[in-house]
Amino acid sequence: MKKKIRAIQYGVGPIGASIARLMREKQAIEIIGAIDTDPSKVGRDLGEVVGAKDAPWGVIVSAEAKEVLEQAADVVIHSTSSSLEKVMDQLLLCLEAESCIVSTCEELSYPFRTHPGLATKLDTAAKEWGVALVGTGVNPGFVMDKLVVTLAAVSQRIEHAKALRIVDASTRRLPLQKKIGAGMSVEEFRAKVAEGVIKHVGLPESVAMVADSLNLPVEQITETIEPKMASERVQTEFLAVEPGQAAGVHQIARGLSKDGKELVYLELQMYVGAKDPADTISLTGHPNISLVIPGGSHGDIATASVVVNSIPAILDAPAGLRTSRDLPLGFFSPNARP
Amino acid sequence: MKKKIRAIQYGVGPIGASIARLMREKQAIEIIGAIDTDPSKVGRDLGEVVGAKDAPWGVIVSAEAKEVLEQAADVVIHSTSSSLEKVMDQLLLCLEAESCIVSTCEELSYPFRTHPGLATKLDTAAKEWGVALVGTGVNPGFVMDKLVVTLAAVSQRIEHAKALRIVDASTRRLPLQKKIGAGMSVEEFRAKVAEGVIKHVGLPESVAMVADSLNLPVEQITETIEPKMASERVQTEFLAVEPGQAAGVHQIARGLSKDGKELVYLELQMYVGAKDPADTISLTGHPNISLVIPGGSHGDIATASVVVNSIPAILDAPAGLRTSRDLPLGFFSPNARP
Repeated sequence: MKKKIRAIQYGVGPIGASIARLMREKQAIEIIGAIDTDPSKVGRDLGEVVGAKDAPWGVIVSAEAKEVLEQAADVVIHSTSSSLEKVMDQLLLCLEAESCIVSTCEELSYPFRTHPGLATKLDTAAKEWGVALVGTGVNPGFVMDKLVVTLAAVSQRIEHAKALRIVDASTRRLPLQKKIGAGMSVEEFRAKVAEGVIKHVGLPESVAMVADSLNLPVEQITETIEPKMASERVQTEFLAVEPGQAAGVHQIARGLSKDGKELVYLELQMYVGAKDPADTISLTGHPNISLVIPGGSHGDIATASVVVNSIPAILDAPAGLRTSRDLPLGFFSPNARP
Repeated sequence: MKKKIRAIQYGVGPIGASIARLMREKQAIEIIGAIDTDPSKVGRDLGEVVGAKDAPWGVIVSAEAKEVLEQAADVVIHSTSSSLEKVMDQLLLCLEAESCIVSTCEELSYPFRTHPGLATKLDTAAKEWGVALVGTGVNPGFVMDKLVVTLAAVSQRIEHAKALRIVDASTRRLPLQKKIGAGMSVEEFRAKVAEGVIKHVGLPESVAMVADSLNLPVEQITETIEPKMASERVQTEFLAVEPGQAAGVHQIARGLSKDGKELVYLELQMYVGAKDPADTISLTGHPNISLVIPGGSHGDIATASVVVNSIPAILDAPAGLRTSRDLPLGFFSPNARP
């Protein structure tokens, strides 16, 4: 019997809670600490905070990141913000504690084009402390990038890569339904987009990963965010959307060559009442090939899965900033290899 | 500009030829040698043997494996036989030359359960010489194992894994159509199965990889080979199959628990006239999830692709015997990472 993997949960929001519950199911993991600044969580048992049936777990949520991290976990599961700039100090603190990191920070998933300076800083620090970090999840991290790159293994030549993800947000959390603007007027929606409040973060990162991995000479990445309008009334557990109101987001990111030719096309439709949710990948080249996940991969469940399933791979990875592209992704199986 | 990857093609049958042509397209690869014992190929230019438009390539096919391998290529692409036992000496010779290997030998794809002794011998030799080797291709190596394991990344719990591959052999090579028994009587088909002549090799290896990677407690692997009967006349470019004759193989491998419960189910239908070719994966657990490649991945094109696309990964891998499960698979991009 090998030693358990000692893990710290950094950020106990809805996704962090879902990750913590999943880690708890894995015999090979021991959760040794939890960090969150929310006063309603600090000082309470982690198992209780995440609504676990087998609470208490004997792990107290603390706001003192540095103190918790000093236990030098094997891995920190980091889930606090989509913004790489905002989480830099948190990540550096984890690296200094000589812990590997699996983070849900979308901008960390492939930051080499969008945040090259921060990427270098993290890579250097990780190598200095001899640990590895990765930003991952279902999107970015899987359906619109890693899976595209994996499918490309059966290709001899690739001219264009496309991924379309249609998510029915009706079954998702209220914060997510609000975040995508469900129930807003078009004007309100556009105002929130302008404020940067309505936005799925990570499409440009996925475009960059796909372009670099498929040798597609993308020089420019564009992104548009439009409302997906409701054509009929949609009632979810949490809210109602009337015809003519926004039902969610319709976001498109493109990777263009120097002379403006489209090489990568990623389209995300995430709205309440989506009729045919699915993830679809299409590669044009030799041969043309496509792949469909009927129903699509469920956002919250899948993100927690991808994060926890990435733990053995990040512990095995060479020191430095890694991406889901670099890691052999699979099911959590720390001792699978005979 | 980095130095080119120096490659040797070991085995110039139909698949080896297809691999050599694809390698020739990659700027980053230089083919420095070719090995085959077929007297009709020995002494001729490799480009001519593989029917390349830009022949001659200035590489002569030689039967003297040891002599060719002494050039110490970075990687040997090995494509001579499905039987691990038969190719052991060839593989050991490559390792002794301190070359990494990507092989299409189906039994090498995951030999830890089916040929544990040979697996250990190869792993030890590879580590001794500081190089890595992998057995891969489209099946085994991708659609019924690696892709199953990759999809499992979005799973929290897995109870059962299934993959179904339906291949229309009408569009494939004559040797393949013959190998699957197309046009034989049922008696002839069964006799050839008993002789070991009709068989797609690699399903038990895929079952083992899936079981180990998904932590499914498989203790026993079973396999059946039945004829897929033609219900109507099928005419291919090469042969005709009459109703009542075998149109191809219908092969099923199962991974069973100690008490006989099915945990992994892999089904391969490869026959001329297949109506709905497709690769389908279904994982039962939390959540249930499935994936479809409509039309399926084309066997010969895809095998050459997976093999060539695996070259950068095997060069980067730690010394030893690797499997497609361990490698971050993608498109050939030796210098993609910024």
